[in-house]
Amino acid sequence: MSLDSLEKLFLEELKDVYNAEKQILRALPKMAKAAESPKLEQAFTQHLKETEGQVKRLEQVFQIVGERPEGVECKAIQGIIEEGQEILQEFQGGDALDAGLIAAAQAVEHYEITRYGTLLAWAKQLGLSEAEGLIQETLIEEENTDELLSDLAEDAINPVAAA
Amino acid sequence: MSLDSLEKLFLEELKDVYNAEKQILRALPKMAKAAESPKLEQAFTQHLKETEGQVKRLEQVFQIVGERPEGVECKAIQGIIEEGQEILQEFQGGDALDAGLIAAAQAVEHYEITRYGTLLAWAKQLGLSEAEGLIQETLIEEENTDELLSDLAEDAINPVAAA
Repeated sequence: MSLDSLEKLFLEELKDVYNAEKQILRALPKMAKAAESPKLEQAFTQHLKETEGQVKRLEQVFQIVGERPEGVECKAIQGIIEEGQEILQEFQGGDALDAGLIAAAQAVEHYEITRYGTLLAWAKQLGLSEAEGLIQETLIEEENTDELLSDLAEDAINPVAAA
Repeated sequence: MSLDSLEKLFLEELKDVYNAEKQILRALPKMAKAAESPKLEQAFTQHLKETEGQVKRLEQVFQIVGERPEGVECKAIQGIIEEGQEILQEFQGGDALDAGLIAAAQAVEHYEITRYGTLLAWAKQLGLSEAEGLIQETLIEEENTDELLSDLAEDAINPVAAA
C-alpha cells in the first residue's frame, strides 16, 4: 500500500468522525434533559464538555495533515442517534427510559471507539506521532465513558430485582 | 423499573439486532468479493456462516420470550453499511481498499458488540438464563471477529512501511 492511499483513507475517516462529533454535540443536551437519574444527566453533561474538547483535537489533527477541518455526513452516527430518539419518544415518562438512553449512548460510544481505534492505527503507520497522541487521548475518554455508562446501566436496571 | 418495561425494551432491541443481522447477511458476500487479500476474503466468508448461526440464535431468543421473530428497520447498521459501500466504491482497485473494508467491518462488529452486550445485561436481569447463554455465545463470536480484523488490519497496512 502506498502512503498516499492510506493518507487519503485517514482523511476520509477524519472527516467522518468530525461530522459524527458535531452530531453528538447536538444530541447530548437532549439526552441529558431526558435522563431521569441525576447521575445519568451528569454523565451526559460531562461527556458534552469532553466532546467539545474532542472536536478541538480533531481540528488539530486536520492542521497536522495540512487540511482545513471539514466534515462529511456521517450516516452511521445519524442512524444511531435516530434510533436513540425513537427510544426516547417511545419510553419517555416510563421507568425503562434511562436503561434505553444508556443503551443508545453506548452505541454512540462504540461507534467512536471503533473509528478512533482505526484512526490511531493509521496515524501510527503514517508516522503522525502528534496526531497519534491526540487520538489516543480521545480514545481513552470514549472508553472511560462507555465503562461509566455500563456502571450506570447496572444502577438503572437493578431496581427490577426489588420490584 | 418494572419487569414489563424492561421486557418491552429487550424485545425492541431484539428486533433491531435481528434486522441488523439480516442486513449484514446481505452485505458480507459483497465485502468478501471485493477483498483483495485471500485471508480477508476468508474472514468475511467465515463470518457470513457465523452470522447465519447468530440469526438462528436470535430466533430461539424470540421463541423463549414467546414472540414471533420480527425485525424493525435498523437505521444504525444501514448507515454503517452505506458508509462501507462508499469506501468500497471510492477505493476499489486501489491498494488501500482492504484497510478501508476492515475499518467498515469493525464498525459493524462494534455495533453488534454494544447491542449484544446490552441484551446480555437485560436478559440476566430478566432471569432469561437460556437466552443469556445464546446471547453470550454470539457476543464472543463478534468479539473474536473484531480481534481477527484488527490482526488482518496490521497485515493490510504494514506494507506501507516497506513502500
